[in-house]
Amino acid sequence: MTNYILSIICPDQKGLVHKITGVLYESDTNVDRTDEYVEPETSTFFMRAVYSGEVNPTIISEKLRSILPKNSQVNVQIQRKKNVVLLVTKEHHCLSDLLIRNEFNDLPFNILAVISNYDSLKELVEKFGIIYHHIPAFGTDIEERMSHEAEMINILNQYDFDYIILAKFMRILTSDFTEKFREKLINIHHSFLPAFIGANPYRQAHERGVKIIGATAHFVTDDLDEGPIIFQDVIAVNHTKTVAEIAAAGRDVEKIVLAKALKMVFEDKVFIAGNKTIIFE
Amino acid sequence: MTNYILSIICPDQKGLVHKITGVLYESDTNVDRTDEYVEPETSTFFMRAVYSGEVNPTIISEKLRSILPKNSQVNVQIQRKKNVVLLVTKEHHCLSDLLIRNEFNDLPFNILAVISNYDSLKELVEKFGIIYHHIPAFGTDIEERMSHEAEMINILNQYDFDYIILAKFMRILTSDFTEKFREKLINIHHSFLPAFIGANPYRQAHERGVKIIGATAHFVTDDLDEGPIIFQDVIAVNHTKTVAEIAAAGRDVEKIVLAKALKMVFEDKVFIAGNKTIIFE
Amino acid sequence: MTNYILSIICPDQKGLVHKITGVLYESDTNVDRTDEYVEPETSTFFMRAVYSGEVNPTIISEKLRSILPKNSQVNVQIQRKKNVVLLVTKEHHCLSDLLIRNEFNDLPFNILAVISNYDSLKELVEKFGIIYHHIPAFGTDIEERMSHEAEMINILNQYDFDYIILAKFMRILTSDFTEKFREKLINIHHSFLPAFIGANPYRQAHERGVKIIGATAHFVTDDLDEGPIIFQDVIAVNHTKTVAEIAAAGRDVEKIVLAKALKMVFEDKVFIAGNKTIIFE
Amino acid sequence: MTNYILSIICPDQKGLVHKITGVLYESDTNVDRTDEYVEPETSTFFMRAVYSGEVNPTIISEKLRSILPKNSQVNVQIQRKKNVVLLVTKEHHCLSDLLIRNEFNDLPFNILAVISNYDSLKELVEKFGIIYHHIPAFGTDIEERMSHEAEMINILNQYDFDYIILAKFMRILTSDFTEKFREKLINIHHSFLPAFIGANPYRQAHERGVKIIGATAHFVTDDLDEGPIIFQDVIAVNHTKTVAEIAAAGRDVEKIVLAKALKMVFEDKVFIAGNKTIIFE
Repeated sequence: MTNYILSIICPDQKGLVHKITGVLYESDTNVDRTDEYVEPETSTFFMRAVYSGEVNPTIISEKLRSILPKNSQVNVQIQRKKNVVLLVTKEHHCLSDLLIRNEFNDLPFNILAVISNYDSLKELVEKFGIIYHHIPAFGTDIEERMSHEAEMINILNQYDFDYIILAKFMRILTSDFTEKFREKLINIHHSFLPAFIGANPYRQAHERGVKIIGATAHFVTDDLDEGPIIFQDVIAVNHTKTVAEIAAAGRDVEKIVLAKALKMVFEDKVFIAGNKTIIFE
Repeated sequence: MTNYILSIICPDQKGLVHKITGVLYESDTNVDRTDEYVEPETSTFFMRAVYSGEVNPTIISEKLRSILPKNSQVNVQIQRKKNVVLLVTKEHHCLSDLLIRNEFNDLPFNILAVISNYDSLKELVEKFGIIYHHIPAFGTDIEERMSHEAEMINILNQYDFDYIILAKFMRILTSDFTEKFREKLINIHHSFLPAFIGANPYRQAHERGVKIIGATAHFVTDDLDEGPIIFQDVIAVNHTKTVAEIAAAGRDVEKIVLAKALKMVFEDKVFIAGNKTIIFE
Repeated sequence: MTNYILSIICPDQKGLVHKITGVLYESDTNVDRTDEYVEPETSTFFMRAVYSGEVNPTIISEKLRSILPKNSQVNVQIQRKKNVVLLVTKEHHCLSDLLIRNEFNDLPFNILAVISNYDSLKELVEKFGIIYHHIPAFGTDIEERMSHEAEMINILNQYDFDYIILAKFMRILTSDFTEKFREKLINIHHSFLPAFIGANPYRQAHERGVKIIGATAHFVTDDLDEGPIIFQDVIAVNHTKTVAEIAAAGRDVEKIVLAKALKMVFEDKVFIAGNKTIIFE
Repeated sequence: MTNYILSIICPDQKGLVHKITGVLYESDTNVDRTDEYVEPETSTFFMRAVYSGEVNPTIISEKLRSILPKNSQVNVQIQRKKNVVLLVTKEHHCLSDLLIRNEFNDLPFNILAVISNYDSLKELVEKFGIIYHHIPAFGTDIEERMSHEAEMINILNQYDFDYIILAKFMRILTSDFTEKFREKLINIHHSFLPAFIGANPYRQAHERGVKIIGATAHFVTDDLDEGPIIFQDVIAVNHTKTVAEIAAAGRDVEKIVLAKALKMVFEDKVFIAGNKTIIFE
């Protein structure tokens, strides 16, 4: 039997769980797990259900829409691996970790391709039989960024991807780009947001003498470093650590934080609610 | 309007969520939150719902029982502070922490009384206007333990308590006692179970040269140190720490672990499933 | 035999450890532990030694000064409990924790007195036989702050204290005050600095949807929230937590972070190096 | 100038630091960092120094031996990358992580070769240009183990290695083997020792319903799972996690714990003291 994942976001009202599970029950599905949450500030209802059955998902969706408030978001999909394209610059640690997880099926995903503004990671990527697109960038003013992004979009259009993972992609994206791939862009930020926003966070951390550093995986929105946070973690450091050692420790946190965030996203457990995430972990 | 907490444990079957939420919906309640889990090994269904409404809880319970499988456990109770009696020996740290939380309403509970086999903590307890029962113990053979427990039971019978908290009660309880207060006894164990079972865990940890120590809050069953685990946490130690320093660090973990476990239990979020806990956190 | 703690801060030069330990060796002391660190950016040498012996500490200090670079800071003191005055406002959790640790000798300190701009914690403090000074504050403009601080300084002058602990003192101190008690003021900040500087950090954290919150203990300098960090720790939160629940979780981190920081400070393990700390833990 | 690492283990006596640093001072070295510790139970003195200079390390060693107690262990070596051979079975996660770190110089080591009792990881290892020796094992009785180990020793003899890393090598080694490579064998244990010793720790953890799992990197001695612990870490799990999910979470902890332990060992910061480690981190 096929497994399906149902996701619903809609204005809250009485009896929603009863009505929704009624549709699933009457359609003779087996429901393995349901999770619900009502966000109190906006009275928004979030629900995730995992069910199995020989039943047409389009019919389920239609039945659900007919009983739910207008403007409800209803999504039924087959439980499957997600397809991703990775964007990288020069750092290998998150990329390596994802290449290995892809090779050994440690995450429910397929890497379709890697795009980089440098060619230094080509050899590594091709070891694993993954296509590497080198798209050099020639500057950071708005025309140069848009022209570079246009080339990336040309490549991206060749792939049927679910998510674009910024696995240490060190260029700032235009709002056109982030808007075009809204809710599909996931970034690993090299700090414990909202601390140390911007460049050189490990140098900032060292100068501030912090005793803990962290990493943040988040969806990317137009507002730099400010999209919905998916996962964060930290490690302790002390006064003996150089900037280089803090950065090395940071890399280990970054790769684990990114992998944990992606696992939850790829299992369709992460809902975006304004600038926050609701996660049915 | 009154808030109620509904807890259900029953054999899993199709449509349970739909049926149960149907009863709540038709009874004109407002459901704030529902959580469900099916334990796969025993196919047991666990559900917790928080709802409000001007509706008789006995009627809700009866309606639910009529639609659920036989032998279902259905519990509807008003959301309220839990009443507890604390059992202590000589160590003050968990006791102090709970006295302060009781005084300032930092946990949803009322401390009805403290019972100890020593009188050294009497002054502290009475500072906070709490009754202290000193019941000396005169040995550890089975007759002496049963006689000591009989005296404690006499005292306990004076109180209408929901839970007995072993806040560093260092005597081993008889199976008669643990059976009598089944699912009502919560212990804080001075180690990361199942490591270092038994006496002097911090000395054991020091001798073994571990780099992390922990604490475990668990329900007490007849099998010493083996009841369902509610919460655990750890802290790092290193080679410079003496047994005394490890123990001091351990005390801080113990008091926080116990308080976090109690918060979840007092909010009726913890279900016992055989020798494990299901927690809707 | 008496235990002494030697602290040295001086410009680095060759052979310092040899020369310093030579003075200790020739003075027939027993050295239990030495720790050294050279801060590479400023080439500053930090050393802590714990030694015992029947030897005049003034003589040791003089001998050391005679062999060390000019402007060296040399400090020899008897290993002893530190005397502190606590400044609080309305929140009890750090205060309670310190009162209990004082009562049961869980930290090497004596609380001499508590000063508060409110009287609501008087009853708690007096339960433990500690003097409570209620010094109301009547505004936050600079004259009002200076006048309030003048009253506090009058009280502080009555005590022979080593440190002033801001155990949730919610008023901003003038630079006159922070300068007067330079290196003697320790604050617990209700966030993981440098994130969420300023007021209502838990509300800020909730609005930003972070998955981890933290607390920071630091020395207070003129630059608000920017003094040398002593200790930090974090705990995970999730989307279900309200601002109140995040704040409650934060309180537990705050009290533990403050206690751990104070333990290291009271054991003379914390050296201030510009805006950072060097800690021989 | 060349960097050297000096390691000393000897019975404690007065003036050791003074005398040792005297030798370094008179030899016109630049000492970057010294760390000392006296293990109180055995009165053993441990010291690590990092120094640079154009000075013959043999002469330094001889001078030090002449002033130290008999039977002192004195070791002076050039600061350099360590050479290692990896032993693996079928699991790739620690191996992959180390191959990537080797490829990108993320740890101060060179992987000389990988030895496995299976051939399934050959392709991965050879992608990175590392030699893979497949030495099948034909049973677990003592003769079969010794015969398998003899073949491994033949291969190991071809390499000039500093350490053998058991990167998920799932066979129990004979005491002959562990004795032959005493203090050179490092293992990653798939649990938070001493909990869940032996096979299937993740199943054990799941059955026990623990809320935290961990991993332990340790030196291997004859006593299975009982050698000196180098590093440990943990992650939280909950009731929804299957054995497979707990194991997957465990793999991420294992690889990070192993890498952190190796970093400290390769930097000569880890001293073995009986069944414990002294770590100058």
